[in-house]
Amino acid sequence: MTVIDIPADSLFGIGNLPYGSFSTPGTAPRIGVRVADKVVDLALALDDDVFARPVLNDFMARGPREWSRVRARITELVRGEIDADAVHDVADVMMHLPIAVADYVDFYASEHHATNLGRLFRPDSAPLMPNWKHLPVGYHGRAGTVIPSGTDIVRPCGQRKAPTEPAPSFGPSRRLDIEAELGFVVGVPSAPGTVITPDEFADHVFGAVVVNDWSARDIQAWEYVPLGPFLGKSFATSISPWVVPLAALEAARVDTPVQDPEPLPYLRGTEKWGLDIDLTVEWNGQIVSRPPYAQMYWSPAQMLAHTSVNGATARTGDLFASGTISGPEPDQRGAFIELTWGGAEPVEVAGETRTFLQDGDEVAIAATAPGPEGSRIGFGEVRARILPATQVG
Amino acid sequence: MTVIDIPADSLFGIGNLPYGSFSTPGTAPRIGVRVADKVVDLALALDDDVFARPVLNDFMARGPREWSRVRARITELVRGEIDADAVHDVADVMMHLPIAVADYVDFYASEHHATNLGRLFRPDSAPLMPNWKHLPVGYHGRAGTVIPSGTDIVRPCGQRKAPTEPAPSFGPSRRLDIEAELGFVVGVPSAPGTVITPDEFADHVFGAVVVNDWSARDIQAWEYVPLGPFLGKSFATSISPWVVPLAALEAARVDTPVQDPEPLPYLRGTEKWGLDIDLTVEWNGQIVSRPPYAQMYWSPAQMLAHTSVNGATARTGDLFASGTISGPEPDQRGAFIELTWGGAEPVEVAGETRTFLQDGDEVAIAATAPGPEGSRIGFGEVRARILPATQVG
Repeated sequence: MTVIDIPADSLFGIGNLPYGSFSTPGTAPRIGVRVADKVVDLALALDDDVFARPVLNDFMARGPREWSRVRARITELVRGEIDADAVHDVADVMMHLPIAVADYVDFYASEHHATNLGRLFRPDSAPLMPNWKHLPVGYHGRAGTVIPSGTDIVRPCGQRKAPTEPAPSFGPSRRLDIEAELGFVVGVPSAPGTVITPDEFADHVFGAVVVNDWSARDIQAWEYVPLGPFLGKSFATSISPWVVPLAALEAARVDTPVQDPEPLPYLRGTEKWGLDIDLTVEWNGQIVSRPPYAQMYWSPAQMLAHTSVNGATARTGDLFASGTISGPEPDQRGAFIELTWGGAEPVEVAGETRTFLQDGDEVAIAATAPGPEGSRIGFGEVRARILPATQVG
Repeated sequence: MTVIDIPADSLFGIGNLPYGSFSTPGTAPRIGVRVADKVVDLALALDDDVFARPVLNDFMARGPREWSRVRARITELVRGEIDADAVHDVADVMMHLPIAVADYVDFYASEHHATNLGRLFRPDSAPLMPNWKHLPVGYHGRAGTVIPSGTDIVRPCGQRKAPTEPAPSFGPSRRLDIEAELGFVVGVPSAPGTVITPDEFADHVFGAVVVNDWSARDIQAWEYVPLGPFLGKSFATSISPWVVPLAALEAARVDTPVQDPEPLPYLRGTEKWGLDIDLTVEWNGQIVSRPPYAQMYWSPAQMLAHTSVNGATARTGDLFASGTISGPEPDQRGAFIELTWGGAEPVEVAGETRTFLQDGDEVAIAATAPGPEGSRIGFGEVRARILPATQVG
């Protein structure tokens, strides 16, 4: 038996307890919970086969009462002695994709980001579209290319045409970018023919992860009218390995910014689902931005309500991301296209000049939030490195 | 033992042999093949457990050599005597979703449709976007709401705002429409880091179905700028129950219309993957349109090559649809918004006047193609009825 030492300032204290899929050398991925710098093997520690599976889906489908019960058991467990075989150093495990992604939806919920992108992509029009303050604008992304943190990103190839060029050309993206986002994971599906109200958010959503929604801006700019982004986004979406349960985010819940005009009734709730979560974007080891999730215009509860209002069902494993998180300040921008203003204002990164991502660059996005009793909890990070394109132009 | 009588003019003769998921009362869905007006239970007839599963995915993942081998065995089988227990009247079985859909992508590959929609949605601009003839425009749809033929469609609710209205309102869609399409199902996944060339189409794609991509035009018009259609499409996409294998479409393969400008090299192939497939759209029992698939500008081989060119992997169960099939003539238009010119030119349907779909309306889209030796093969149909909205405005 062993006791896990939890430093008072650990971002993975008893107020957090995020779930992930881990393996040790020679073993199959299974579910663990992170506590301080340890991972507890839940199939062993709780003797429940649902945690012997490689993804959280079956556990998530059990619903909030079971999530609470298990969280209480884990809390009790890590306060006492645990079977030493069930405890691994986080440095000794490999982390995998924690969920089997059903549908992936990406929103566009930051007013600052949408305004900046509008200015950059459509310099001749009003930056914010007329619909933007009436509904959380979103679109479906590619579920099959959601990948875990640590997986290298091969620079994508595709068609791109600068406005000054007469015809499109094919080749590696020259404007490879990040989008720092939060993602929310659906546990409990909705019944056909029902809608999910904003106040039913916690009946369905299991937890949250940090998302890097890689974006090839040149490919995106050429392809996206009129049906939206496709290949500019579909090559990869990275997520952090630890799913922070909603229960750990109680102290982070805040009001969204004032929404004016008042949204239609189906987007109104009585519960606060703004989230005071602070992100950091690290580019080659240097923090270049600190996007504040609390500034997001639309709450994740409104995103889910909107997604379901036409009768579309939600499934276990659905992942919906917030869209780039950008605050009002330049050093709060969650995408490099904003940070460098479309490449026109290069930044100094670790002693070198950058506009967009270069081969070999590494990006890590991390997040922390207030936890219980003045503590802080961590999401960990989503990290990846850019590899050169494998095709030629 | 029994012998299946196959009339010479059957659309489900030996040249077709499409696969579906069927059940008889009190039994679980399993894989069958359609022959004339019979369904052959393949798990029983071929003694292969892969057909005892409710969806085709595991069989599709086996790849083209195995697809050919099984097709040859089935051909031999239905030419001789079959265990009577393995043969059911098609009228006695219930059909289910034949595939577990991984990612769903919808294209926009008909020049006539894209031009018509451009005129209707953006009357002040050029109808065809500058990118349209350079790449098959597409976007991701909602995989979780792909449903089998026969499932009723509840009229979706959502936000809509006519240009003349000062603010959006919420309520049942007033412009509920169809899109007559063909869908293609991926069997063999692509390896990470590889692309699929147009000539590798048949190494990955298992077969085709008829698709009705239901569309709430008022919801779509309000939401779709700048990130594309979302709730206007995500409530339901119906597919026909029989997956026609590519092997059955040999006689239907034709050149696409001339593509000018010549596409970039990654979209060029030496094989013909235009398809001479004729659709019919039946509205309350009356055929209102005959969309010709042979007129589609982009081939499905180009669609798949485009989808993969940025390195995005394809998975078993990926479904990609062509987008609305419209020919140059008014009675070849595959969406009612085109047929009634945005509702401005109502049509007479079974003795009543129609612009968009009314509650209680029923739509059936069917398709046939040339088969071997002058025969024709059928896809069957995708059929559904509109139920009233369950929410109030």
